[in-house]
Amino acid sequence: MSDYRLQALARLARLAPGLVLKTDPADLEHYGRDWTRRWTPAPLAVALPASVEDVQAVLRWACADGVAVVPSGGRTGLSGGAVAAKGELVLSLERMNRALDFDPVDRLLTVQAGMPLEAVQRTAADHGLLYPVDFAARGSCAIGGNIATNAGGIRVIRYGNTREWVAGLKVVTAQGEVLELNRGLVKNASGYDLRHLFIGSEGTLGVIVEATLRLTDPPPPSQVMLLAVPELDALMRVFGAFRSHLRLQAFEFLNDRGATHVVAHGAQPPFAEVSPYYVVTEFDAASDDDQNAALAVFEQCLEQGWVSDGVIAQSQAQAAALWRLREGITEALAPRKPYKNDISVRISAIPAFMHAMQDLFERDYPGFDVVWFGHIGDGNLHINVLAPDGMAQDAFIARCEQVTKALSEALVRVGGSISAEHGIGLVKKPYLSGTRSDAEIALMRAVRAALDPAGILNPGKLFD
Amino acid sequence: MSDYRLQALARLARLAPGLVLKTDPADLEHYGRDWTRRWTPAPLAVALPASVEDVQAVLRWACADGVAVVPSGGRTGLSGGAVAAKGELVLSLERMNRALDFDPVDRLLTVQAGMPLEAVQRTAADHGLLYPVDFAARGSCAIGGNIATNAGGIRVIRYGNTREWVAGLKVVTAQGEVLELNRGLVKNASGYDLRHLFIGSEGTLGVIVEATLRLTDPPPPSQVMLLAVPELDALMRVFGAFRSHLRLQAFEFLNDRGATHVVAHGAQPPFAEVSPYYVVTEFDAASDDDQNAALAVFEQCLEQGWVSDGVIAQSQAQAAALWRLREGITEALAPRKPYKNDISVRISAIPAFMHAMQDLFERDYPGFDVVWFGHIGDGNLHINVLAPDGMAQDAFIARCEQVTKALSEALVRVGGSISAEHGIGLVKKPYLSGTRSDAEIALMRAVRAALDPAGILNPGKLFD
Repeated sequence: MSDYRLQALARLARLAPGLVLKTDPADLEHYGRDWTRRWTPAPLAVALPASVEDVQAVLRWACADGVAVVPSGGRTGLSGGAVAAKGELVLSLERMNRALDFDPVDRLLTVQAGMPLEAVQRTAADHGLLYPVDFAARGSCAIGGNIATNAGGIRVIRYGNTREWVAGLKVVTAQGEVLELNRGLVKNASGYDLRHLFIGSEGTLGVIVEATLRLTDPPPPSQVMLLAVPELDALMRVFGAFRSHLRLQAFEFLNDRGATHVVAHGAQPPFAEVSPYYVVTEFDAASDDDQNAALAVFEQCLEQGWVSDGVIAQSQAQAAALWRLREGITEALAPRKPYKNDISVRISAIPAFMHAMQDLFERDYPGFDVVWFGHIGDGNLHINVLAPDGMAQDAFIARCEQVTKALSEALVRVGGSISAEHGIGLVKKPYLSGTRSDAEIALMRAVRAALDPAGILNPGKLFD
Repeated sequence: MSDYRLQALARLARLAPGLVLKTDPADLEHYGRDWTRRWTPAPLAVALPASVEDVQAVLRWACADGVAVVPSGGRTGLSGGAVAAKGELVLSLERMNRALDFDPVDRLLTVQAGMPLEAVQRTAADHGLLYPVDFAARGSCAIGGNIATNAGGIRVIRYGNTREWVAGLKVVTAQGEVLELNRGLVKNASGYDLRHLFIGSEGTLGVIVEATLRLTDPPPPSQVMLLAVPELDALMRVFGAFRSHLRLQAFEFLNDRGATHVVAHGAQPPFAEVSPYYVVTEFDAASDDDQNAALAVFEQCLEQGWVSDGVIAQSQAQAAALWRLREGITEALAPRKPYKNDISVRISAIPAFMHAMQDLFERDYPGFDVVWFGHIGDGNLHINVLAPDGMAQDAFIARCEQVTKALSEALVRVGGSISAEHGIGLVKKPYLSGTRSDAEIALMRAVRAALDPAGILNPGKLFD
């Protein structure tokens, strides 16, 4: 490290004595990367504040010294948004992980940004309420990162994205100023709702240090059902039938390749016979009426030939086993370093789009292992591609990026998005212009320049 | 009108031949004011576009000629946001009032910005679905204005504000460029969600020309109940009891002064005996269980002395009559030109805040007729003050503004907002700094400058 950099860090340590600063190579590697594993971590150092004041000090120092800052939560992101590969200071919120306040009348829970999602969910449950955003990385991801990417997950169909649950945000700006946005109010028509500008901004506009989250009633008793679906066209028909007769909490699908990998990873095989597609769905089942409605809609789908088999969980354990088939995919594939796409179209566009994708993959991915899964009830498909044996990682990624270009062009035609929930980060930056117009990107740049004129917050991500 | 202005209008007429331009004094008065009636309308002219291209032409012309533009919907606003009193061009979306598209799978309805809220609700119902935002001005207000102010209303407790229902926005910028924001996607993590920046921006950032609205299932059968509440402290207790046992669709209150005015205006007297407060509540009543729960919670409140009387509507007509008591207030008071406050605090802060306000009014408004009502389940209180007989309007407003200053200071102490749903416009501009910090206001100005550097969009409103 250069003398200048060393001196700058020494100055930072003096400015914020409460800060923990790490420069060990193992720490730099650990804090410098997310779950993408495509970039070599190379941060300047890692700063772990214990207070909002520490965060302010870091940002004032960074502004004065022109040091780039990468805000950092659980780093479970899949788009490189939290990667520090260019000498940035990683600002990890990991020590700021406590619940600060709960009010039973307001049903608001205020937490520090470094609190893991699962701890937020548990705290809500301790108060007899529900924080409903949920996804497989719940134990590792931080609520601040959830907010910075407007995380979605498996309950969006019922509860919406993270955005819907943020009633207040405390943010430190690039200049080190503290903003207290919306302060937990239900109604507040007092000018631009800047809270929503920071939600989903991937650390490029400010550092989220605290969030006031809305909680809701726990969901009613539910049932989990696994369905075998014989063909692509039937998936949305089954969704339509289930949606019109039941109150859905989740409606997820995966293809047979996905099931194969999760079963190889230890999950139970779903049915005696292999099916091209599977659906995991969870729905309200408070009364006998609900359960009868579920059976009736299942039988209707069976008669139509839209499903070929099905099982309804008879216990909590069995429900967890059925869910594992869907939720275990990311973990099962991780060792194979899959190339990930996370696209979104209008729900009505899903069938035609899936056919177009299938044709594209058959043409451009011969011999590749293509795992499809996701939240089709939200119009969100995950496409994970595994390299054929023996193909070098660089050649594999180059090949995948060509396909992503074609995918991106197909998305333009239906008005879809190159990122449903992972964010743009570094991975999807080359394709942003297919999802957002030039005028929109120019406007985003103008907003960015207005808030962070020195460009110290997560530079190079999103559109820089 | 000066020659220069006349020439500019002639140029506009040539640039956009589809535009209707009005300059009659009666039109200037009609289109130059909203429901506030505190400013003398004095627009340059009124432009009524028939297409997005017309709107683009108007804004390009306005930018080139340096003419201020006031975007205009139903002008039912109560904050002066749509007032044109300084030679602005009023850009009325009134001719752009059609439904453009509906998709039953997506459950999305795309409409032009000038469509009245009631027509949006009716169109949704024609498709067997619900657009759930609702308030008394439904027949006159336009959906574009609803979005520009993030309108709330009587169903927020169940369905949230307008913001929650906007899945896509078409906006024309100050430079005349068209933005198509979010395009109806459920999930879209592709950078800043500019849609949310325009929602609630009161016409200062761009002109909303089309909206894609989410629709939902029609609500289950409901019942309407009117309660007599003997004291302030009981209001939130009744709310707590009802919220924990029933699924509320609305929970509204009014004081006896409000009831008196509505009864004088033709509504039925609620009960034989006058009560200091009344609550109108509507809740799901799909089954006998729901109805029994409602009666049980009513009896519990009666036993505790929190309510002194109550009636449950036995018919649609009776439900409408009970609702009229709450919804008829604005109309009943309008001829008296009330001074309006529309404040918001956290729900938990309501009891203490109402006591503080009562003390304030008794001290500062002796002899004034103070009508309280609103959405206490959302933390939103409306306070309408009527001038004592014989007091001149100017002296009355000056007096009221002094009280609003005290009210604003009380709001600072509890972190509330000077505007829950009406917006800032002209009326609340002097008090914005009590609700938003200097840093927030500076940031709003910076965003405004980035989007509309020439400052032609609704100048003088909000914070200018």
